[in-house]
Amino acid sequence: MKQLIIATKNKGKAEEFKIMFAKYGINAISLLELEEDIPDIEETGSTFEENAALKSEGIMKLLNIPVMADDSGLMIDALDGRPGIFSARYAGEPKDDQANIVKVLKELENVQDPNRTARFVCVLSVSIPGQPTLFKKGSCEGKIALAESGSHGFGYDPIFIPEGYEQTMAELEPNIKNKISHRYHAMVQLEEWIQNLS
Amino acid sequence: MKQLIIATKNKGKAEEFKIMFAKYGINAISLLELEEDIPDIEETGSTFEENAALKSEGIMKLLNIPVMADDSGLMIDALDGRPGIFSARYAGEPKDDQANIVKVLKELENVQDPNRTARFVCVLSVSIPGQPTLFKKGSCEGKIALAESGSHGFGYDPIFIPEGYEQTMAELEPNIKNKISHRYHAMVQLEEWIQNLS
Repeated sequence: MKQLIIATKNKGKAEEFKIMFAKYGINAISLLELEEDIPDIEETGSTFEENAALKSEGIMKLLNIPVMADDSGLMIDALDGRPGIFSARYAGEPKDDQANIVKVLKELENVQDPNRTARFVCVLSVSIPGQPTLFKKGSCEGKIALAESGSHGFGYDPIFIPEGYEQTMAELEPNIKNKISHRYHAMVQLEEWIQNLS
Repeated sequence: MKQLIIATKNKGKAEEFKIMFAKYGINAISLLELEEDIPDIEETGSTFEENAALKSEGIMKLLNIPVMADDSGLMIDALDGRPGIFSARYAGEPKDDQANIVKVLKELENVQDPNRTARFVCVLSVSIPGQPTLFKKGSCEGKIALAESGSHGFGYDPIFIPEGYEQTMAELEPNIKNKISHRYHAMVQLEEWIQNLS
Protein backbone atom coordinates (compact mmCIF):
# COMPACT_ATOMS: atom_id res chain seq x y z
CA MET A 1 0.00 0.00 0.00
CA LYS A 2 1.62 3.20 -1.22
CA GLN A 3 -1.40 5.44 -1.56
CA LEU A 4 -4.70 5.74 0.24
CA ILE A 5 -7.71 8.05 0.12
CA ILE A 6 -8.96 9.49 3.41
CA ALA A 7 -12.73 9.81 3.10
CA THR A 8 -13.03 13.14 4.86
CA LYS A 9 -13.43 16.76 3.88
CA ASN A 10 -12.33 17.89 7.34
CA LYS A 11 -8.92 19.53 6.98
CA GLY A 12 -7.83 19.04 10.60
CA LYS A 13 -8.68 15.33 10.63
CA ALA A 14 -7.06 14.81 7.21
CA GLU A 15 -3.85 16.46 8.39
CA GLU A 16 -3.59 14.20 11.46
CA PHE A 17 -4.08 11.06 9.37
CA LYS A 18 -1.63 12.21 6.69
CA ILE A 19 1.14 12.64 9.26
CA MET A 20 0.52 9.17 10.71
CA PHE A 21 0.49 7.44 7.31
CA ALA A 22 3.54 9.37 6.08
CA LYS A 23 5.64 7.69 8.79
CA TYR A 24 5.06 4.40 6.95
CA GLY A 25 5.66 5.77 3.46
CA ILE A 26 1.96 5.92 2.62
CA ASN A 27 0.75 8.96 0.73
CA ALA A 28 -2.69 9.71 2.17
CA ILE A 29 -4.90 12.01 0.12
CA SER A 30 -8.08 13.58 1.47
CA LEU A 31 -11.25 14.21 -0.53
CA LEU A 32 -10.35 17.91 -0.43
CA GLU A 33 -7.34 17.26 -2.66
CA LEU A 34 -8.94 14.87 -5.14
CA GLU A 35 -9.68 16.13 -8.61
CA GLU A 36 -12.52 13.66 -9.07
CA ASP A 37 -15.85 14.82 -7.70
CA ILE A 38 -16.96 12.26 -5.13
CA PRO A 39 -20.71 12.29 -4.45
CA ASP A 40 -21.70 12.56 -0.78
CA ILE A 41 -22.50 9.15 0.69
CA GLU A 42 -25.53 8.86 2.95
CA GLU A 43 -24.85 7.34 6.33
CA THR A 44 -27.82 4.99 6.43
CA GLY A 45 -26.21 2.29 8.60
CA SER A 46 -27.30 1.34 12.09
CA THR A 47 -23.78 1.13 13.61
CA PHE A 48 -20.57 3.19 13.46
CA GLU A 49 -18.98 0.28 11.56
CA GLU A 50 -21.70 0.23 8.91
CA ASN A 51 -21.54 3.98 8.39
CA ALA A 52 -17.75 4.01 8.13
CA ALA A 53 -17.84 1.07 5.70
CA LEU A 54 -20.51 2.73 3.53
CA LYS A 55 -18.00 5.53 2.96
CA SER A 56 -14.76 3.54 2.62
CA GLU A 57 -16.27 0.78 0.45
CA GLY A 58 -18.31 3.22 -1.63
CA ILE A 59 -15.32 5.36 -2.55
CA MET A 60 -13.01 2.35 -2.93
CA LYS A 61 -15.41 0.93 -5.54
CA LEU A 62 -15.48 4.24 -7.41
CA LEU A 63 -11.70 4.74 -7.51
CA ASN A 64 -10.37 1.19 -7.09
CA ILE A 65 -7.67 2.17 -4.57
CA PRO A 66 -7.45 1.77 -0.74
CA VAL A 67 -9.76 4.10 1.19
CA MET A 68 -10.03 4.87 4.90
CA ALA A 69 -13.17 6.34 6.46
CA ASP A 70 -14.26 7.13 10.01
CA ASP A 71 -17.46 7.44 11.94
CA SER A 72 -17.79 8.55 15.52
CA GLY A 73 -20.25 9.63 18.16
CA LEU A 74 -21.14 9.96 21.82
CA MET A 75 -22.78 7.09 23.72
CA ILE A 76 -24.49 8.01 27.00
CA ASP A 77 -25.30 5.10 29.33
CA ALA A 78 -28.38 6.69 30.90
CA LEU A 79 -29.79 7.19 27.38
CA ASP A 80 -29.17 3.57 26.35
CA GLY A 81 -26.24 4.59 24.17
CA ARG A 82 -27.90 7.55 22.46
CA PRO A 83 -27.14 9.84 20.62
CA GLY A 84 -24.71 7.22 19.15
CA ILE A 85 -24.77 7.18 15.36
CA PHE A 86 -27.20 10.12 15.48
CA SER A 87 -24.72 12.33 17.38
CA ALA A 88 -24.16 14.93 14.66
CA ARG A 89 -27.85 15.59 14.05
CA TYR A 90 -29.39 14.60 17.39
CA ALA A 91 -31.52 17.76 17.58
CA GLY A 92 -32.49 17.48 13.89
CA GLU A 93 -31.45 19.16 10.64
CA PRO A 94 -29.41 21.21 10.00
CA LYS A 95 -26.48 19.95 12.11
CA ASP A 96 -26.28 22.22 15.19
CA ASP A 97 -23.74 21.47 17.97
CA GLN A 98 -25.40 23.91 20.36
CA ALA A 99 -28.89 22.47 19.90
CA ASN A 100 -27.51 18.93 20.37
CA ILE A 101 -25.87 19.93 23.66
CA VAL A 102 -29.05 21.57 24.93
CA LYS A 103 -31.04 18.44 24.06
CA VAL A 104 -28.61 16.11 25.87
CA LEU A 105 -28.44 18.28 29.01
CA LYS A 106 -32.25 18.44 29.08
CA GLU A 107 -32.56 14.64 28.75
CA LEU A 108 -30.09 14.18 31.62
CA GLU A 109 -31.73 16.83 33.83
CA ASN A 110 -32.77 14.29 36.46
CA VAL A 111 -29.72 12.02 36.16
CA GLN A 112 -27.11 12.42 38.88
CA ASP A 113 -23.47 11.36 39.14
CA PRO A 114 -22.37 8.49 38.98
CA ASN A 115 -25.08 7.75 36.39
CA ARG A 116 -23.90 10.34 33.88
CA THR A 117 -21.22 8.04 32.39
CA ALA A 118 -20.62 8.15 28.66
CA ARG A 119 -18.01 7.43 26.02
CA PHE A 120 -16.89 8.91 22.75
CA VAL A 121 -16.44 6.17 20.16
CA CYS A 122 -14.56 6.29 16.85
CA VAL A 123 -14.51 3.57 14.22
CA LEU A 124 -12.00 3.64 11.37
CA SER A 125 -12.64 1.41 8.36
CA VAL A 126 -10.08 0.59 5.68
CA SER A 127 -11.30 -0.84 2.37
CA ILE A 128 -8.70 -2.28 0.01
CA PRO A 129 -9.76 -3.65 -3.41
CA GLY A 130 -10.25 -7.42 -3.19
CA GLN A 131 -10.00 -7.57 0.63
CA PRO A 132 -12.60 -7.57 3.39
CA THR A 133 -12.99 -4.16 5.06
CA LEU A 134 -10.92 -3.79 8.22
CA PHE A 135 -12.24 -2.00 11.33
CA LYS A 136 -10.44 -0.39 14.27
CA LYS A 137 -12.44 1.01 17.18
CA GLY A 138 -11.26 3.46 19.82
CA SER A 139 -13.07 5.00 22.74
CA CYS A 140 -12.65 7.63 25.43
CA GLU A 141 -14.52 7.03 28.71
CA GLY A 142 -15.98 9.90 30.69
CA LYS A 143 -19.14 11.54 31.95
CA ILE A 144 -21.54 14.29 30.95
CA ALA A 145 -21.02 17.60 32.80
CA LEU A 146 -23.95 19.40 34.44
CA ALA A 147 -23.39 22.44 32.23
CA GLU A 148 -21.29 23.28 29.19
CA SER A 149 -17.90 24.84 29.54
CA GLY A 150 -14.81 25.48 27.40
CA SER A 151 -14.23 26.74 23.89
CA HIS A 152 -11.84 24.26 22.25
CA GLY A 153 -12.93 21.41 20.02
CA PHE A 154 -16.40 20.90 18.62
CA GLY A 155 -19.51 18.72 18.92
CA TYR A 156 -20.16 17.52 22.45
CA ASP A 157 -16.68 18.49 23.74
CA PRO A 158 -18.08 21.27 26.03
CA ILE A 159 -20.14 18.76 28.07
CA PHE A 160 -17.83 15.71 28.08
CA ILE A 161 -15.43 15.24 31.02
CA PRO A 162 -12.89 12.48 30.22
CA GLU A 163 -12.09 9.97 32.98
CA GLY A 164 -9.14 11.16 35.08
CA TYR A 165 -9.75 14.83 34.27
CA GLU A 166 -11.77 17.58 35.93
CA GLN A 167 -12.29 19.71 32.85
CA THR A 168 -14.45 19.13 29.81
CA MET A 169 -12.84 18.09 26.51
CA ALA A 170 -13.43 21.69 25.35
CA GLU A 171 -11.44 23.08 28.30
CA LEU A 172 -8.45 20.81 27.68
CA GLU A 173 -5.75 22.15 25.38
CA PRO A 174 -5.92 20.53 21.91
CA ASN A 175 -2.50 18.88 22.41
CA ILE A 176 -3.91 17.07 25.45
CA LYS A 177 -7.25 16.22 23.81
CA ASN A 178 -5.43 14.72 20.83
CA LYS A 179 -3.58 12.35 23.18
CA ILE A 180 -6.65 10.90 24.88
CA SER A 181 -9.44 11.07 22.31
CA HIS A 182 -11.43 8.20 20.81
CA ARG A 183 -9.84 8.99 17.45
CA TYR A 184 -6.38 8.81 19.00
CA HIS A 185 -7.10 5.32 20.33
CA ALA A 186 -8.48 4.10 16.99
CA MET A 187 -5.49 5.59 15.18
CA VAL A 188 -2.94 3.84 17.41
CA GLN A 189 -4.63 0.53 16.59
CA LEU A 190 -4.56 1.34 12.90
CA GLU A 191 -0.90 2.32 13.20
CA GLU A 192 -0.13 -1.03 14.80
CA TRP A 193 -1.81 -2.76 11.83
CA ILE A 194 0.12 -0.65 9.30
CA GLN A 195 3.36 -1.36 11.10
CA ASN A 196 2.74 -5.09 10.77
CA LEU A 197 2.05 -4.67 7.05
CA SER A 198 5.38 -3.02 6.34
CA MET B 1 8.75 24.74 39.16
CA LYS B 2 12.03 24.75 37.26
CA GLN B 3 13.59 21.55 38.53
CA LEU B 4 12.24 18.22 39.69
CA ILE B 5 13.68 14.89 40.77
CA ILE B 6 12.30 11.73 39.16
CA ALA B 7 12.40 9.00 41.81
CA THR B 8 13.52 6.22 39.49
CA LYS B 9 16.72 4.43 38.66
CA ASN B 10 15.20 3.05 35.46
CA LYS B 11 16.93 4.77 32.55
CA GLY B 12 14.16 4.19 29.98
CA LYS B 13 11.44 5.56 32.25
CA ALA B 14 13.60 8.53 33.28
CA GLU B 15 14.25 9.42 29.63
CA GLU B 16 10.52 9.44 28.78
CA PHE B 17 9.71 11.69 31.72
CA LYS B 18 12.64 14.04 31.00
CA ILE B 19 11.39 14.64 27.45
CA MET B 20 7.87 15.39 28.65
CA PHE B 21 9.00 17.82 31.37
CA ALA B 22 11.53 19.53 29.06
CA LYS B 23 8.63 20.72 26.86
CA TYR B 24 7.53 22.88 29.79
CA GLY B 25 10.98 24.17 30.69
CA ILE B 26 11.32 21.82 33.66
CA ASN B 27 14.70 20.18 34.16
CA ALA B 28 13.91 16.65 35.40
CA ILE B 29 16.77 14.77 37.04
CA SER B 30 16.65 11.05 37.76
CA LEU B 31 18.19 9.33 40.77
CA LEU B 32 20.83 7.96 38.40
CA GLU B 33 22.22 11.47 37.86
CA LEU B 34 22.07 12.70 41.45
CA GLU B 35 25.33 13.07 43.33
CA GLU B 36 23.63 12.59 46.68
CA ASP B 37 23.19 8.99 47.69
CA ILE B 38 19.47 8.39 48.22
CA PRO B 39 18.68 5.40 50.43
CA ASP B 40 16.22 2.88 48.94
CA ILE B 41 12.70 3.47 50.23
CA GLU B 42 10.64 0.45 51.22
CA GLU B 43 7.25 0.23 49.55
CA THR B 44 5.22 -0.68 52.61
CA GLY B 45 1.95 0.95 51.52
CA SER B 46 -1.26 -0.91 50.75
CA THR B 47 -2.14 1.03 47.56
CA PHE B 48 -0.27 2.28 44.49
CA GLU B 49 -0.87 5.84 45.74
CA GLU B 50 0.69 5.12 49.16
CA ASN B 51 3.74 3.46 47.62
CA ALA B 52 4.30 6.27 45.12
CA ALA B 53 3.88 8.86 47.89
CA LEU B 54 6.34 7.06 50.17
CA LYS B 55 8.95 7.60 47.48
CA SER B 56 8.09 11.14 46.33
CA GLU B 57 7.48 12.51 49.85
CA GLY B 58 10.49 10.70 51.32
CA ILE B 59 12.92 12.09 48.77
CA MET B 60 11.25 15.53 48.75
CA LYS B 61 11.83 15.76 52.52
CA LEU B 62 15.48 14.78 52.10
CA LEU B 63 16.27 17.25 49.32
CA ASN B 64 13.57 19.92 49.79
CA ILE B 65 12.79 20.17 46.06
CA PRO B 66 9.86 18.82 43.95
CA VAL B 67 9.95 15.05 43.40
CA MET B 68 7.88 12.78 41.15
CA ALA B 69 7.56 9.03 41.80
CA ASP B 70 5.54 6.24 40.23
CA ASP B 71 4.10 2.93 41.25
CA SER B 72 2.37 0.48 38.96
CA GLY B 73 1.06 -3.05 38.71
CA LEU B 74 -1.34 -5.50 37.14
CA MET B 75 -4.85 -6.00 38.51
CA ILE B 76 -6.63 -9.21 37.47
CA ASP B 77 -10.42 -9.27 38.04
CA ALA B 78 -10.65 -13.03 38.59
CA LEU B 79 -7.97 -12.73 41.30
CA ASP B 80 -9.78 -9.87 43.09
CA GLY B 81 -7.26 -7.35 41.81
CA ARG B 82 -4.12 -9.34 42.58
CA PRO B 83 -1.15 -9.19 42.04
CA GLY B 84 -1.75 -5.39 42.35
CA ILE B 85 0.86 -3.71 44.52
CA PHE B 86 2.63 -7.09 44.81
CA SER B 87 3.11 -7.34 41.03
CA ALA B 88 6.91 -7.11 40.98
CA ARG B 89 7.45 -9.81 43.58
CA TYR B 90 4.28 -11.90 43.22
CA ALA B 91 6.21 -15.19 43.16
CA GLY B 92 8.47 -14.07 46.01
CA GLU B 93 12.03 -12.76 46.34
CA PRO B 94 14.14 -12.13 44.35
CA LYS B 95 12.05 -10.29 41.71
CA ASP B 96 11.52 -12.75 38.82
CA ASP B 97 9.29 -11.80 35.86
CA GLN B 98 9.22 -15.35 34.55
CA ALA B 99 8.17 -16.88 37.89
CA ASN B 100 5.47 -14.22 38.28
CA ILE B 101 4.04 -15.06 34.85
CA VAL B 102 4.01 -18.79 35.60
CA LYS B 103 2.21 -18.15 38.89
CA VAL B 104 -0.49 -15.99 37.26
CA LEU B 105 -1.09 -18.42 34.40
CA LYS B 106 -1.40 -21.25 36.93
CA GLU B 107 -3.90 -19.31 39.05
CA LEU B 108 -5.99 -18.58 35.96
CA GLU B 109 -5.81 -22.15 34.65
CA ASN B 110 -9.53 -22.73 35.06
CA VAL B 111 -10.66 -19.23 34.16
CA GLN B 112 -12.03 -18.79 30.63
CA ASP B 113 -12.60 -15.75 28.46
CA PRO B 114 -14.43 -13.36 29.09
CA ASN B 115 -13.42 -13.72 32.74
CA ARG B 116 -9.71 -13.12 32.15
CA THR B 117 -10.07 -9.31 32.16
CA ALA B 118 -7.32 -7.26 33.79
CA ARG B 119 -5.75 -3.82 33.76
CA PHE B 120 -2.32 -2.34 34.14
CA VAL B 121 -2.43 0.62 36.53
CA CYS B 122 0.14 3.39 37.00
CA VAL B 123 0.03 6.07 39.68
CA LEU B 124 2.31 9.11 39.50
CA SER B 125 2.77 11.21 42.63
CA VAL B 126 4.29 14.67 42.73
CA SER B 127 5.46 16.06 46.07
CA ILE B 128 6.32 19.76 46.23
CA PRO B 129 7.64 21.29 49.50
CA GLY B 130 4.75 22.83 51.43
CA GLN B 131 2.02 21.37 49.21
CA PRO B 132 -0.16 18.27 49.46
CA THR B 133 1.07 15.42 47.26
CA LEU B 134 -0.67 15.29 43.88
CA PHE B 135 -1.69 11.98 42.25
CA LYS B 136 -2.43 11.08 38.62
CA LYS B 137 -3.65 7.59 37.76
CA GLY B 138 -3.64 5.93 34.35
CA SER B 139 -4.74 2.50 33.28
CA CYS B 140 -4.70 0.16 30.28
CA GLU B 141 -7.59 -2.31 30.02
CA GLY B 142 -7.08 -5.79 28.62
CA LYS B 143 -7.07 -9.50 29.36
CA ILE B 144 -4.65 -12.23 30.33
CA ALA B 145 -3.54 -14.47 27.44
CA LEU B 146 -3.67 -18.27 27.74
CA ALA B 147 0.10 -18.50 27.20
CA GLU B 148 3.00 -16.08 27.06
CA SER B 149 4.17 -14.62 23.80
CA GLY B 150 6.42 -11.81 22.56
CA SER B 151 9.81 -10.49 23.55
CA HIS B 152 9.42 -6.71 23.94
CA GLY B 153 8.85 -4.95 27.24
CA PHE B 154 9.12 -6.53 30.66
CA GLY B 155 7.07 -7.72 33.63
CA TYR B 156 3.69 -9.15 32.67
CA ASP B 157 3.81 -7.77 29.10
CA PRO B 158 4.07 -11.28 27.51
CA ILE B 159 0.67 -12.32 28.95
CA PHE B 160 -1.30 -9.06 28.72
CA ILE B 161 -3.45 -8.42 25.63
CA PRO B 162 -4.62 -4.77 25.56
CA GLU B 163 -8.23 -4.10 24.62
CA GLY B 164 -8.59 -3.57 20.86
CA TYR B 165 -5.46 -5.62 20.06
CA GLU B 166 -4.85 -9.25 19.28
CA GLN B 167 -1.22 -9.38 20.40
CA THR B 168 0.25 -9.23 23.86
CA MET B 169 1.97 -6.06 25.07
CA ALA B 170 5.28 -7.89 24.47
CA GLU B 171 4.40 -8.52 20.82
CA LEU B 172 3.51 -4.90 20.13
CA GLU B 173 6.32 -2.66 18.95
CA PRO B 174 7.56 -0.34 21.73
CA ASN B 175 6.37 2.76 19.83
CA ILE B 176 2.83 1.34 19.92
CA LYS B 177 3.04 0.16 23.54
CA ASN B 178 4.21 3.61 24.62
CA LYS B 179 1.07 5.14 23.10
CA ILE B 180 -1.45 2.97 24.94
CA SER B 181 0.20 2.02 28.23
CA HIS B 182 -0.97 2.81 31.76
CA ARG B 183 2.09 5.06 32.18
CA TYR B 184 1.21 6.91 28.98
CA HIS B 185 -2.27 7.66 30.34
CA ALA B 186 -0.96 8.83 33.71
CA MET B 187 1.65 10.99 31.97
CA VAL B 188 -0.91 12.74 29.76
CA GLN B 189 -2.85 13.68 32.89
CA LEU B 190 0.30 14.96 34.52
CA GLU B 191 1.12 16.91 31.38
CA GLU B 192 -2.30 18.54 31.48
CA TRP B 193 -1.61 19.60 35.07
CA ILE B 194 1.82 21.01 34.19
CA GLN B 195 0.37 22.89 31.25
CA ASN B 196 -2.14 24.58 33.56
CA LEU B 197 0.69 25.53 35.94
CA SER B 198 2.67 27.37 33.29
